[in-house]
Amino acid sequence: MVDTTAAAEPGSDPRPNTPARRSWWGWGTEGQALPDAECRALGALVPGSAADPLPVPDIAALTLPKPRLAPPSALARLMSDAPGERAAHTYGKAYRDIVRALSGDLAAAPDQVAFPRSEQDVVDILDWATGANAAVVPYGAGSSVVGGVEYRAGRHNAVVSLDLSGLDRVLETDRVSRAARIQAGALGPALETQLRPHGLTLRHFPQSFEFSTLGGWLATRAGGHYATLHTHIDDLVESLRVVTPVGVNESLRLPGSGAGPSPDRLFLGSEGTLGVITEAWMRLQDRPRHKASVTVRFDDFRTATDAVRAIAQSGLNPANCRLLDPGEATVSGVAHDGTSILVLGVESALGPVDHRLAELVALARDHGGTSAPPIPGAAGSAAGTWRSAFLRMPYVRDALARMSVISETFETACTWDRVPGLYETVRRELGAVVEKVTGSTGLINCRFTHVYPDGAAPYFTVIAPGRRGDEVAMWDEIKAAAMQILGDHGATVTHHHAVGRDHRPGYDRQRPDPFALALRAAKDALDPAGILNPGVLLDPPGE
Amino acid sequence: MVDTTAAAEPGSDPRPNTPARRSWWGWGTEGQALPDAECRALGALVPGSAADPLPVPDIAALTLPKPRLAPPSALARLMSDAPGERAAHTYGKAYRDIVRALSGDLAAAPDQVAFPRSEQDVVDILDWATGANAAVVPYGAGSSVVGGVEYRAGRHNAVVSLDLSGLDRVLETDRVSRAARIQAGALGPALETQLRPHGLTLRHFPQSFEFSTLGGWLATRAGGHYATLHTHIDDLVESLRVVTPVGVNESLRLPGSGAGPSPDRLFLGSEGTLGVITEAWMRLQDRPRHKASVTVRFDDFRTATDAVRAIAQSGLNPANCRLLDPGEATVSGVAHDGTSILVLGVESALGPVDHRLAELVALARDHGGTSAPPIPGAAGSAAGTWRSAFLRMPYVRDALARMSVISETFETACTWDRVPGLYETVRRELGAVVEKVTGSTGLINCRFTHVYPDGAAPYFTVIAPGRRGDEVAMWDEIKAAAMQILGDHGATVTHHHAVGRDHRPGYDRQRPDPFALALRAAKDALDPAGILNPGVLLDPPGE
Repeated sequence: MVDTTAAAEPGSDPRPNTPARRSWWGWGTEGQALPDAECRALGALVPGSAADPLPVPDIAALTLPKPRLAPPSALARLMSDAPGERAAHTYGKAYRDIVRALSGDLAAAPDQVAFPRSEQDVVDILDWATGANAAVVPYGAGSSVVGGVEYRAGRHNAVVSLDLSGLDRVLETDRVSRAARIQAGALGPALETQLRPHGLTLRHFPQSFEFSTLGGWLATRAGGHYATLHTHIDDLVESLRVVTPVGVNESLRLPGSGAGPSPDRLFLGSEGTLGVITEAWMRLQDRPRHKASVTVRFDDFRTATDAVRAIAQSGLNPANCRLLDPGEATVSGVAHDGTSILVLGVESALGPVDHRLAELVALARDHGGTSAPPIPGAAGSAAGTWRSAFLRMPYVRDALARMSVISETFETACTWDRVPGLYETVRRELGAVVEKVTGSTGLINCRFTHVYPDGAAPYFTVIAPGRRGDEVAMWDEIKAAAMQILGDHGATVTHHHAVGRDHRPGYDRQRPDPFALALRAAKDALDPAGILNPGVLLDPPGE
Repeated sequence: MVDTTAAAEPGSDPRPNTPARRSWWGWGTEGQALPDAECRALGALVPGSAADPLPVPDIAALTLPKPRLAPPSALARLMSDAPGERAAHTYGKAYRDIVRALSGDLAAAPDQVAFPRSEQDVVDILDWATGANAAVVPYGAGSSVVGGVEYRAGRHNAVVSLDLSGLDRVLETDRVSRAARIQAGALGPALETQLRPHGLTLRHFPQSFEFSTLGGWLATRAGGHYATLHTHIDDLVESLRVVTPVGVNESLRLPGSGAGPSPDRLFLGSEGTLGVITEAWMRLQDRPRHKASVTVRFDDFRTATDAVRAIAQSGLNPANCRLLDPGEATVSGVAHDGTSILVLGVESALGPVDHRLAELVALARDHGGTSAPPIPGAAGSAAGTWRSAFLRMPYVRDALARMSVISETFETACTWDRVPGLYETVRRELGAVVEKVTGSTGLINCRFTHVYPDGAAPYFTVIAPGRRGDEVAMWDEIKAAAMQILGDHGATVTHHHAVGRDHRPGYDRQRPDPFALALRAAKDALDPAGILNPGVLLDPPGE
């Protein structure tokens, strides 16, 4: 597994494996970043954007703070303070992260980046960090969009980014129970590749699939592939192994239990504050052999919302059920006539799904939808167009960021009774904020990424011209207003991203006070030195 | 709602409502208890049972310890120390509870029984109990079979049973989102009656449905009606209100969220140790209009197990999928030829379900099952016979207890790879223990109550003759052996009952140590005086 010849940096390189060279400042791999000409072409679509893209700084030309601590000799083989590693582990991949990286600001870079190759390495690193009063920031693949991997507290002597990417194997497969024991650092494609020979799949496909890890999904309660039913990774967990500073927490591998509060549910969503997830037994599925998808059009979004609600409450549980509002449909290239588009997909490992798709389409028609007949295979279809646009979006976002265009998303979930009001309020009130901040009406688009019998998860995209140098402050003002609107509507501050540091104001408002006390107490019991991802979910002790 | 004319006890009666008079010693209502002649007839089926039923003691003739504290005048209207109330709140409804009640042993009776009529009453009672160092045992309808409502710790000055049955209303209904805000003390029938006019149903039907409450289901993570998919009450929760000694915990009403560890999941399964659940927003369903069920026969249980696994992994999600082994099929009266019986049921509010049932039956046939064609309506069918037997079982158990027959159940869940081994080991090794303890081979029957893609929940019934006066000790020895076998097989100590006090040894083994520290810390933060259900899940502080 160790390929030291492919070292990305000169000098010491403890990375166990080095796949396609990842961008240190933006999404995905360096090769996928859009060239300057394409940045300009995209910028031209947004009136008020910059004329030329921000240059991508050369790391060698940037100033990084001197590392404040060195690893002990026993751990030196696992650690790197190479500028490229430190730079790449400074930020996540939010819009504000991209802009700050492009500005060359690496003041918050971790002092060391650790690459454990075994669970014992994780134990040893936590022990050392506890003694050194070094903060440890667990790091999967760094796709956090909420400041989850960026140290901002003050009282620690140093900061270690704990990159789990070396723990990337499927260790055991149980074909009978359809489950596998998987290390937390496995990227989506790596774990699917290892499961494929068994005819099994996790089928957890967040937009970040290529560049996020099982451990990251678990630590943040990620939302994945399915639009209905088992939407979150939480439901796919049989058991977890978590290294905490006071010992390894291993839950029993179970299909169901009623024995006390679920131990796993305390660590799911703990975002690296209670322990480091090292592996999990995950529930798998047979690989689907039958798939079909179709798009349905609606003249107005409110009618579409009601239709989607009927589908969500039907018990038919489509695998995909994404509703795009007119703006989102336009940006995604699936409609340009002001209609709203519903992408419906069904799949099965067992037998043909046409009957179920027909039932869904009939339901959508009964509620005002009009549709083309199902198109076999997604190629060339609106569903396929949407999917291509979906995967390309983060690269487009980076290109727009280089053109000083504010381009960011926020997401939420609320019960159906509040969905129409929330949608209208965001469009109206946040629209006014965007205009005040940027001087342009910009775009505020929405899609429903997941739907439930009792509610939906609206996902908003904001695109507006920024002023070069002020982009982060401008976005922060817009985001604060968005968080306020969500809170006022009883909607959650995050549905399938995480809390991190950026969502703390909304989270602190959402979280019940007694639960905050309980979580604080659990944190102090498991992480007495307060070294684990300080500032995420909870204030660091004494601050 | 308050009907003081129906007072069950002379003198003060704070009960807000008094439905059919409930048995103080056994299951359900007094009128449903089997008469002596039927007890004898049932005993005659178990060689070695007693000749005559134990008499049911008259409470007036029993000695209860003198109450150690009186309520303050402001709370007196909510409290009772009437012998009948204290006796009825001493035990749950496990076999060992029934036997001890019949023996007239009421030494562990609570000093006071409190009947709050509002959430503020709950707050006031906890405040008072904290000051008085009185343990508070939250009590729904007392159907615990794990010692969950029976105080056994020692350091408190007194014990108050907190009977939530006065909080029994559906407070609010949201037809659009299909949800309702329901008070925790509502019994199953009471909440369904209030939901029916809205065309909605919670459809959580545990065997204890008539005599258990929403709050009890939530506090114990109860398993309910559905054999697949949303088996546990956990998944039906939008939000909770919980009174803790440090404040009221109210979570946001959400269809989904990724904001930190789920606050609700800490209280679900907390069994009254972290707070008193007073109400919950629950996800509801449209009332099903189409139902069909069928039974499938299998020549041997192992083949049947494989067939059920195929069904559980098919994604067809039948509402009912109960597999009865030959002994269980015989006792339930649905087969007498040594075959195993699978009861399959499907239902929908949307449209006919015959197609889905046919798919399920085809799958069962492909895996070795043979079936009669579906019988419309359950009356007269094996499925209907099984359901009648199912609801009658607790009364039969009580009758057998009076005949000094050990008659008890235990349940678990494990992954499919371990299911056949667990089944065989329980039959063989626990069979040997039963024979050693009772001198008779007795019966050890099994049914699968719930099935998952990755495992099953086997539910075992043990019937064997006991020696009058030694029944509890004999059962405890059998149960300890059962708990050991479950633990050895990596199976959970409880799937749809609870931990209470009786399952503590198995639970302490199952629960990861770091999680135990976190739970202890959360408990100390929320219940600093340690008054809430001490001894459940965790040792009381200082003991």
